[in-house]
Amino acid sequence: MKKVYLDNNATTCVDEKVLEAMLPYLKENYANPSSMYEPARYSAKAIENSRSQIADFLGVDNPNTIIFTSCGTEGANTAIKGVVSKFGNLENKNHIITTRVEHPCVLSVYENYEKKGYKVSYIGVDENGDLDVEALLNKVDDKTILVSVMHANNETGAIYPVYDIAREVKKINKDTKVFVDGVQAAGKIPIELRNSDIDFYSISGHKFHAPKGIGALYIKEGTLFEPFMLGGHQENSLRAGTYNTPYIVALGEAAKLAKDSLDFELSEVKRLRDKLENGILSQLKNAKLNSKAKKRVPNTTNIGFEYIEGELILLYLNELGIYASSGSACTSGSLDPSHVLRAQKVPFTSLHGSIRFSLSRFTTEDEIDYAIEKVPEVIKKLAKISPFQKELNELGL
Amino acid sequence: MKKVYLDNNATTCVDEKVLEAMLPYLKENYANPSSMYEPARYSAKAIENSRSQIADFLGVDNPNTIIFTSCGTEGANTAIKGVVSKFGNLENKNHIITTRVEHPCVLSVYENYEKKGYKVSYIGVDENGDLDVEALLNKVDDKTILVSVMHANNETGAIYPVYDIAREVKKINKDTKVFVDGVQAAGKIPIELRNSDIDFYSISGHKFHAPKGIGALYIKEGTLFEPFMLGGHQENSLRAGTYNTPYIVALGEAAKLAKDSLDFELSEVKRLRDKLENGILSQLKNAKLNSKAKKRVPNTTNIGFEYIEGELILLYLNELGIYASSGSACTSGSLDPSHVLRAQKVPFTSLHGSIRFSLSRFTTEDEIDYAIEKVPEVIKKLAKISPFQKELNELGL
Repeated sequence: MKKVYLDNNATTCVDEKVLEAMLPYLKENYANPSSMYEPARYSAKAIENSRSQIADFLGVDNPNTIIFTSCGTEGANTAIKGVVSKFGNLENKNHIITTRVEHPCVLSVYENYEKKGYKVSYIGVDENGDLDVEALLNKVDDKTILVSVMHANNETGAIYPVYDIAREVKKINKDTKVFVDGVQAAGKIPIELRNSDIDFYSISGHKFHAPKGIGALYIKEGTLFEPFMLGGHQENSLRAGTYNTPYIVALGEAAKLAKDSLDFELSEVKRLRDKLENGILSQLKNAKLNSKAKKRVPNTTNIGFEYIEGELILLYLNELGIYASSGSACTSGSLDPSHVLRAQKVPFTSLHGSIRFSLSRFTTEDEIDYAIEKVPEVIKKLAKISPFQKELNELGL
Repeated sequence: MKKVYLDNNATTCVDEKVLEAMLPYLKENYANPSSMYEPARYSAKAIENSRSQIADFLGVDNPNTIIFTSCGTEGANTAIKGVVSKFGNLENKNHIITTRVEHPCVLSVYENYEKKGYKVSYIGVDENGDLDVEALLNKVDDKTILVSVMHANNETGAIYPVYDIAREVKKINKDTKVFVDGVQAAGKIPIELRNSDIDFYSISGHKFHAPKGIGALYIKEGTLFEPFMLGGHQENSLRAGTYNTPYIVALGEAAKLAKDSLDFELSEVKRLRDKLENGILSQLKNAKLNSKAKKRVPNTTNIGFEYIEGELILLYLNELGIYASSGSACTSGSLDPSHVLRAQKVPFTSLHGSIRFSLSRFTTEDEIDYAIEKVPEVIKKLAKISPFQKELNELGL
């Protein structure tokens, strides 16, 4: 059976070149990079090489602004808890601003602070998925310790103007820290943190063809925070834990390859995504595009199928070897409709039938043609068993 | 040049069988185990298989008592911060008991709590390195929220009676939680948490031939704590972050192999360790054994060379392809003498010249013979340039 993997925002395959780069560190080059002898220094060098590759990928000059983490979640925990522990108090430094459409891993950290008495302002998006930046800036005051906005949305691919937001936030309150969850932007659009006002920017390797279990966090020079992972003096005492040399090497290589592939992402991957999107929308009158933001990443589309149940669509697509998703993998198993699409006021009729398709540079034209053929077949089949026969008939299904 | 790696307490090589087991998850089986489609379920199954292997390794019946972490440091942070955040307050639940000889990653978490106003009692060891259990138990009172003792010491290999300590602590205060850092015990001695009173037990894969960057934490059924890594609902909402499937599979396989190799560790590895120890001690009158605890792990010896500088010994050994260490890798680069050996009151004369040699199941007789030949040569060479000529002459050097 054909296998068409269209869930690259959940995770990506490891690039063969990435695997090749890391393998020696799973074999002969196993010394602990913190040790003093010769083989350890070799590993330590490989880590610093990766750090430079990540700096280059994120558009910064100083590699020492980069620390390695075990995942995007750790990056978010480090930035958020690091700022709140360092600067927050329940009297006059108790305000955090974020968005309604952040990733669950970020939102749940804020929910935890709300329980502890912090005030969290959640900024909404309009019906296209664009962020209400004015509302966000209006919320910034003397008590605001942190503004936290993702760079690109995992479900719709919407890009938010994080550089502008950071700059304007600092004009209102220069002490407010800005954290950007860049997990879904890395590898899809250029990132340029040099000269930006962003204090923290997190990325996760498995979203751009490195393995799961490695990420990085950019911390602007001079930005204070309380370290999250306490212990040994690794990472300049900012993140303890034995260096995961193989995955760190993999992350650097993946960053280099992703940077080299950016033009391809923005042209060819975008072309295939547009082809898929148009191919589905043109065949089905009940298909509504949810990815309508002014700017969006080139690999993602989110389409709502009116009067059809999303879980059923995924089940039928799975039978045909097509893998997509209805929300973030981290909320899979929950039947609640997507918080991102609800924030965007996607109507009830298509909310429950919304599917995200996300491509990568390894997605082929052939795979997209197969999906364009099969997705409408599945929707038409499911239309026959939907309880909304009248409405679907009116849409020609 | 010969390469003799005798620093297995710092990190170990990845077993070829472990690499073989994990590789498919770095290649074709890359689906996010939290996703809903077929390939994801395959990955999810592999994770549950590993969880059962870890449970078996730690001597527990219920695999759901195991969560995966990114390293031993994360395990310690999760247990310690989890207990203090959940149960601690600065008025009447403000007391923690630990030892002077814990790993730096554990000690630095406690130092941080001291700064915040918590009271931490540090229990010492005697001149053999055995823990003063009576003093520890005398400290337990109504305010004690946590007792934290490592199972085996990384520098000397001393084994502490953690099962007895946990049992006696609970008799005095049933609400006191017990955390055992098992990082240096795992793979070296049997672990049997079934029916024990230990609440948390952490292990790190790279100490028993899994890669760096993966660990596990046992949490006794029903033990409450505040999760450390917040985010998605992975690990039953106890530890967020995309599952690192390849390394999780590696950890399970490494645990299985380590369990199968325990008899070999306790006989053959111990035989080689004893041969190395006796071989060095018998040739050098200035060599003093620091590893003198009643019970110790089979792979470790720590020897102090009087009137010789430890960093120089390591440098010279490095030139001969022999890799050892003078403390934990996490404190490498610091010239402060070992806090473990100071706690044991190792005299000044040999404290600075103390070297740890740690073997693994891959250490060969040939390598040990080479070390027995070369270590004394190095010590004799360094004796010639030591400022303590009179003292060394008296010792026949």
